[in-house]
Amino acid sequence: MNNTKDTICALATPPGTAGLAIIRLSGNDAIAIADQCFKGKTTLQQAQSHTIHYGIIYDTHNNPIDTVTAFLYKAPHSYTGENTVEFGCHGNMIIVEQILQALINKGATPAKAGQFTQRAFINGKIDLTQVEAVADIIHASSTIGAQTAARQLLGGFTQKLEQLRDQLITLCGLLELELDFTEQDIELIEKQTIRNNINAIINHCQQLAQQYRSAQILRAGFHIALVGYPNAGKSSLFNALLNRKRAIVSHIPGTTRDYIEETLHIQNIAVKITDTAGLRNTEDTIEMEGIHLAQSIITQANLVLIINDATQGTDHSNTLQHKLQQQFPTTHIITVHNKIDLIPNMSIPEGTIAISTKTAQGIDQLTQTIADIIKPDTEAPKDILINQRHAQLLNQAIQHLQQANTTLDQGYSNDLIAIDARAAIRILGEITGQVSSEDILNAVFSSFCIGK
Amino acid sequence: MNNTKDTICALATPPGTAGLAIIRLSGNDAIAIADQCFKGKTTLQQAQSHTIHYGIIYDTHNNPIDTVTAFLYKAPHSYTGENTVEFGCHGNMIIVEQILQALINKGATPAKAGQFTQRAFINGKIDLTQVEAVADIIHASSTIGAQTAARQLLGGFTQKLEQLRDQLITLCGLLELELDFTEQDIELIEKQTIRNNINAIINHCQQLAQQYRSAQILRAGFHIALVGYPNAGKSSLFNALLNRKRAIVSHIPGTTRDYIEETLHIQNIAVKITDTAGLRNTEDTIEMEGIHLAQSIITQANLVLIINDATQGTDHSNTLQHKLQQQFPTTHIITVHNKIDLIPNMSIPEGTIAISTKTAQGIDQLTQTIADIIKPDTEAPKDILINQRHAQLLNQAIQHLQQANTTLDQGYSNDLIAIDARAAIRILGEITGQVSSEDILNAVFSSFCIGK
Repeated sequence: MNNTKDTICALATPPGTAGLAIIRLSGNDAIAIADQCFKGKTTLQQAQSHTIHYGIIYDTHNNPIDTVTAFLYKAPHSYTGENTVEFGCHGNMIIVEQILQALINKGATPAKAGQFTQRAFINGKIDLTQVEAVADIIHASSTIGAQTAARQLLGGFTQKLEQLRDQLITLCGLLELELDFTEQDIELIEKQTIRNNINAIINHCQQLAQQYRSAQILRAGFHIALVGYPNAGKSSLFNALLNRKRAIVSHIPGTTRDYIEETLHIQNIAVKITDTAGLRNTEDTIEMEGIHLAQSIITQANLVLIINDATQGTDHSNTLQHKLQQQFPTTHIITVHNKIDLIPNMSIPEGTIAISTKTAQGIDQLTQTIADIIKPDTEAPKDILINQRHAQLLNQAIQHLQQANTTLDQGYSNDLIAIDARAAIRILGEITGQVSSEDILNAVFSSFCIGK
Repeated sequence: MNNTKDTICALATPPGTAGLAIIRLSGNDAIAIADQCFKGKTTLQQAQSHTIHYGIIYDTHNNPIDTVTAFLYKAPHSYTGENTVEFGCHGNMIIVEQILQALINKGATPAKAGQFTQRAFINGKIDLTQVEAVADIIHASSTIGAQTAARQLLGGFTQKLEQLRDQLITLCGLLELELDFTEQDIELIEKQTIRNNINAIINHCQQLAQQYRSAQILRAGFHIALVGYPNAGKSSLFNALLNRKRAIVSHIPGTTRDYIEETLHIQNIAVKITDTAGLRNTEDTIEMEGIHLAQSIITQANLVLIINDATQGTDHSNTLQHKLQQQFPTTHIITVHNKIDLIPNMSIPEGTIAISTKTAQGIDQLTQTIADIIKPDTEAPKDILINQRHAQLLNQAIQHLQQANTTLDQGYSNDLIAIDARAAIRILGEITGQVSSEDILNAVFSSFCIGK
């Protein structure tokens, strides 16, 4: 971990021109360093925690840089748990850089990304699920995603994990207590009760792990991949979806020339639509080679739309559909028949949608279908925004608990059951960071911005 | 002016993603509205001014939006002079918009640009020169410009103007006192003393008004216009100056196709170089028609560089130089001979510079010359950043005082002298806003951003 003895400083608000910018200074020497640059009615050293002070901040040549407001938090009553001073200055990057330089000249160090929150974690102010909630709030792309992360920050996930751990600890206590009585052949706890307890915890863990899919949609948006044979109208549909919504959020040029991606909002959720040019470049008969190019996109997709040229027959893309469904068995795949304006009285196979990108016929129905698919995942804010790390650890805990059940069924002694239960306790502790390795912490904090 | 009874709210920090964003709420009902959305350990109503409170902010459905820090300022001890609450939330625009909506739902109004500062002015917290200093600090493009504006915000200009007004008020007092004794033909104050007093004040006003040029450089940067006959190498010099500095700040495409503009930094000052394509389009013989196109650019320029193709003779651009100097008598104009790599042992006319954009010969000397021209205007921070409004009012005051001198010389009675002296007092009062019209105030606040 980073050196926690340094007093660190950084701009905490976005860069740019505005009325106000906030510079954060945290560490043992924060108040002493601030008092060397800032002159108010009293020194900050003499002031009480959680008070606001108007004054002037000076550079090392004693030139006034700006009139500022100093916000004082004395350890341990601050975000980081350390002495912290925040300066509110005018929102001009020239001013911000001068103030940061003045603080650095007096002994502060520029903060690394996430370093303030890292200190909050090290000092026990928040646990790892709350650290992740902070990052999720800052980067949320939807209201409901931000709200769910805010609830997680309030400790909703922590509480639930503590309950599960407590149940496991109680169970282990009983299992291990029984060991003392083995020779007397006393059964303190019935096998079925143990099994029921373990299964209840497994169920809880599974429910949590299953929320990963919807949490990922709240966090990163809902991904739709458009695939299909050349000239089926993928790009036309791409444009039709975007134009009708008139809510394009950003134009992200593909990192390779293989695809283009746009974002719109459906159900208040960022919906990323990717036009897989990989398939576009292949010949009429789609080779799995061609699919391979689009594979990484389809892997991440929550929904794959196969655009079929209806003038070639409604079964024209069936081979493609079969191959995709085989390769991605859990992915939602829908065939969309295009160019129906050219086919009067076309009969539409069940489970497919018929559209014309030329006349816009069916586009509203397609958008509604997409909205219906998104809806269940995003309807109400939950208390927890499960991420990949949580899901992996929950699945590891589940595996150990299932192993405990197997051990139980095979009639082994309680101490062997307890080994797996203890492993599950440790793993649940990793989620909150009670048990943690430097690698995990570095991975969690790497997604942070400087100043937080 | 705006309705000062509203409680107004706005994001005060730049929009964007970051650790922190600050939302400002100010007005009679600020604390009551804040208490309806914010739940901390105590209500803000019960808390003391200048204290910081940790808590949660809720939407109208009682869903937590974010954990926030509330900064409390009770009237009149705030920036605006009103009750003010600032909320520090996570720096995500989704969160910011939800919090603003929650405040608006409870009765707050979205703030207009500059409205917080306008209230600070209305409530007598700062005067008009300080209002202008706030805008200048936020938009300063150089360290020294920001520092000078910061000093003006501290009241340096206000003090100087008060001194001048006090001197004039004392003088008027004496002049008008004498009126009571006119019939007794008593001269309480000698004509020469009056003249000396008035001249001293005129001098002071002139010194201030003259600072407008350098203040404008600090505020908006130093403008260089490149002019010359076609193929003299204007564009090559343009690129040579930019490339050698490797400090391009921004690429601003011209609002018309008539010119291109780039900014670099010399002497820590933003230097805007404009290549006047207007002259590029004319034929070999420069017509005043062609100059007309570039006229608005040259009018704003602090320095005009005439690029002369030395292979056509060092006197090739003399006509152009004469015509420009005639039309812009106060503008700094230098002829730069280009392509000297093609002319061995060229003799360089005095006051001109010889370069080769091909070999880069002389470019350093040219940059140094530019730096030397900029230097005197920007060497040390002053206390005042004179703007156009100040300069105009100072010149009006000077005119009245000169008229007072004329009246004095013509032997008119003191009451006539006093009329002009009183006019000068009123005009100096307009600078600080003691005397102000709605038009002036609207003009001053129109340059503000929302949230300040």
